[in-house]
This record gives sequence, C-alpha cells and structure tokens, in this order.
Amino acid sequence: MTDGSIAALLDGTLVDPAEPLLRPDDLGVLRGEGVFETTLVVDGHPRDLDVHLVRLAISAQATGLVVPAPDRWRAAVAAVVGAWAGGSQMVLRLIASRGPEHGEPVCYLLGTELPVSSRRQRRSGVRVLLLERGFTVDVGASAPWLLAGAKTLSYGINMSALRHARANGADDVIFIGTDGAVLEAPTSSVVVARGRTLITPPDEAILAGITVRRLFRAASAAGWPVRTERLGTADLHAADGVWLTSSARLLAPVVAIDGRPRSDGGLTGELAELLDMPAA
Amino acid sequence: MTDGSIAALLDGTLVDPAEPLLRPDDLGVLRGEGVFETTLVVDGHPRDLDVHLVRLAISAQATGLVVPAPDRWRAAVAAVVGAWAGGSQMVLRLIASRGPEHGEPVCYLLGTELPVSSRRQRRSGVRVLLLERGFTVDVGASAPWLLAGAKTLSYGINMSALRHARANGADDVIFIGTDGAVLEAPTSSVVVARGRTLITPPDEAILAGITVRRLFRAASAAGWPVRTERLGTADLHAADGVWLTSSARLLAPVVAIDGRPRSDGGLTGELAELLDMPAA
Repeated sequence: MTDGSIAALLDGTLVDPAEPLLRPDDLGVLRGEGVFETTLVVDGHPRDLDVHLVRLAISAQATGLVVPAPDRWRAAVAAVVGAWAGGSQMVLRLIASRGPEHGEPVCYLLGTELPVSSRRQRRSGVRVLLLERGFTVDVGASAPWLLAGAKTLSYGINMSALRHARANGADDVIFIGTDGAVLEAPTSSVVVARGRTLITPPDEAILAGITVRRLFRAASAAGWPVRTERLGTADLHAADGVWLTSSARLLAPVVAIDGRPRSDGGLTGELAELLDMPAA
Repeated sequence: MTDGSIAALLDGTLVDPAEPLLRPDDLGVLRGEGVFETTLVVDGHPRDLDVHLVRLAISAQATGLVVPAPDRWRAAVAAVVGAWAGGSQMVLRLIASRGPEHGEPVCYLLGTELPVSSRRQRRSGVRVLLLERGFTVDVGASAPWLLAGAKTLSYGINMSALRHARANGADDVIFIGTDGAVLEAPTSSVVVARGRTLITPPDEAILAGITVRRLFRAASAAGWPVRTERLGTADLHAADGVWLTSSARLLAPVVAIDGRPRSDGGLTGELAELLDMPAA
C-alpha cells in the first residue's frame, strides 16, 4: 500500500489503493457522478459514523443513486479500521461512484493518514479569503437539481476555490452568496461566536455540517446558547471568533479574513474540548 | 471490449474499457478534478479536433492541471480511430483526470457508439425545461474559481438537471441565470433564429461552444447574419427556432419549452447542412 493508505470494497476485501479500481467509463470519473462522506477514525473509533451514513443516503437519494444499506458500509468500515496500521487519526472516506452507464455503482472506502496540514491548522488556524459562490442562498429550496445539500463527487469548484486561496496567500475560503450571505467553506462549515453564543448559517444552500451539529449539541448541553442565523460578511468581521468545522480537521480558528488578522476570542480551546478533539 | 466501446492511453495502447484504469484515490474520482472534451468521429474523421484540443488546454489551465501537448493527444486519437470497429459515428472522449495527490494526471481516450437517442433527437428534436442555474451571467468574469468556462469532470449538476427533466416528461434543459439570462444546456449550447438571423448567448458564464462556432462560421459564409447577444426566456418563446448544438448530437431542434410546443421555423434541415451533419 502506498504511503500507508488503505482501501476496501464493501464486502471488506482490502484492495491496494495504488492499483486501479474504477473503469475508464465510470460516470463517477466522466461526470463526477457519485456521493461520498469523510469521517475521522480516532484510535480505531470512527466519529459520528451513523450520522455520516444517514447523510450519504440523503446525498444518494438527491442524485438518484442506489447505495448499499448502512450495515454493509459499517462492516466495511470495521474491516478498514481493523487493518489500519497507520497513526492514531485516520481520515476515512466512504465513496459511491455511479459506475458505467447501465452498470452498478462502485462503492469503496479509502483510509489515509490525517494530513500534517490539518493537525497544524487545528492549532495555528487558517487565513481565509471570502469568495463569491455565485448563487443566492435560496437555491437549495427553489432548484433541487443544483444539489446544494448533497455531498457529491463533483467538487471541482470547491477545489478550484482552495487553489485560488493558496495562490493568494491564504489557506482556505469562506463562500459568500451573491446576496451577501455567508454560506460555507469548500470542505467545512462556518461557525461564529458572538460573546459566548455560537451561530452557524442555516443549511439552505449548503451542506448540513455534521461537526457543527456535534459542536452545537455539546455546547448546548454545556450551557452555551447556540443558533442558526443568516450571516453577512459584516457579521464575520464583527464576531468574537470565527471557525471552520469539518469531519477530519474538526476545528480550525480563522485567524485572518481577506488579509485582515482576527482573534478567536480565546475560545478555540473550549470549543475543541466540546468537540472532544483528539490531541495532536 | 464491452458493447463495442474502446479505450486507449495517450501512448496509443488500447485498454479494455471494462477493466479498471483509475486508482481509488484519483482526485478525478474523489473530487471531480480533471477536464475533458467530446468530439464526434465520422467515418474515421474526428470533427474539429484542433479546436477541442485548444479548449482542453484552456480548461486545464483554468484548473491548474498540466496535460500533455496536443500532438500526443492526436497520436492517441489516431490509434483509437484506427482500431474502431463500430458504426460510422463514434463519440470520442478525451479525458484528463488529476490523478492521486502528488501524482500524475491520468489521460486517456474513450470511444463509444453514438447513442440511438442522439440520432433520434437530431431528427425529432428535444422537449426542454427551463431550469434555474443559480448564478448570474457575470460570474465568469468576477469569479474565475467557479470555472464557468472550463469543461471539467465535475458535471454532477448538469447530470442532475437532465435527470430532473427526464423525470418531468422532457428530454433536455436550458439553464437560466438568476438574472433571467439564457445560459446553455447541460451538455449543449443554445442557438435561436430571429427570421434568418442566428443568435447565441455570449460565453460569459458558459462554455464556449465549438459546434455553435462551426455553425456560425458556415452560416456567415453562406450569407446568414449571426451574432452573440444576451437572451431572456421571452426571446426563446418569441424566436422563430431554437436549437441545442453540441459536439456529438450536433444539432437538435427544441420542439417544446416547459411543455409548450414550438416550431423550428423549418430551418433545421438548412442548419444541419451548414453543420455538415452526417446522415443518420
């Protein structure tokens, strides 16, 4: 296996990630047709696996894809976790590619070492650019064919925005709607603190974040006010802290927006505890 | 080879399209990262190959991908065309998938039989739905990271819109911007006739269509006025004819918009001749 990565089919068969698995006519390749989830496995325990499997099914339904039942995914996850010989934090992807025309979806798992950059950004934070996403926040409801709430393999724009940020001295991106609404990051959700109130944008035209949901549940149980609310860019600048949350990196404080440094209000440590974030 | 399909690597080596070619960690699969072109090969002659290779390079540059030089693609095209044992019209895809992180792009060609539905729609036309694309026409200029002018492997939304159309009694889609501008179809350009003047929307937030360019060049040489102009949905309904043009299907008259039948003004035959469209 290359660089410690590991892959498995849904029946638990391990396959070499350096060996071809997908046909050249797979619509996952030709058209970015398929869905996926990413979770973090810490010391052999996949985080929020049930919730990821629910969201995978939602994404599959939105794209007209029939994917195997959750139990079959769980068995394959167990096989990958059991065979993992890497570090204590594995990024685990669950992938369903549509397969060839008139064929069956190709479902598999891919486990990789948590990138060093993710560990670093948990501590030292991310500099973000605010980039236009090109749509208004209401497209989720008015135009379901735009798949705003589905996690599909068509992530080209997300990756392009990240490249744009990196080419311009930043690490990450917060997408802004044409109506000025704060949306999400290319691979993360956005959370802000106003005092000790945690706020995230409603999942209207964005993916429902699993890590933000976990954070809000824990914060709420610990007595923090939490709510969803439409946010504008002025709210980002005025907030006492801004974070990106995601399933693998978990939590990264935003330390600069469009080159303008900003504080995390000293709250990152507390939020990391609420998220049960593993030590580096 | 399955169903007469054929595939080849850039060095001209033929590979079985039913055998895996792409690694499970290829970013073309995981993230829809990569670019492609589709052309039609008629009686062994690829149409507009040079122009497709130029556009492939433009898409690659927009996505930060380094793809082989045109001559290498041409040699592989020749190998596929030479080995083709199917009918007189082959759909030929040129694909560059980003490959694994820190790896090389995977470049290959895939030749398939022209679908029966494409042949049929050239004659009998397509019923289209007008569907919101969710952005305004100016994102091409203001937000290059949205890759509006690049032909990438992240075609999930395009395919989803087509599924939506088919589930609602139509065959195809014309995307409309949030500002009401006519954009393009998921895999085609839009052309309208006003009298004998041919009009297409400017390629601001859409792909520069190769078939519409070919049509306009031929029409212009034959004395038809042609121009690019921003169009609204009222212009579609008021037009004397509306067509979808693309590299494989070439030309399909729009025979209904949102369930409302419409005429092609009796011009489809003339346009097909201008396009040098092969007989069925």
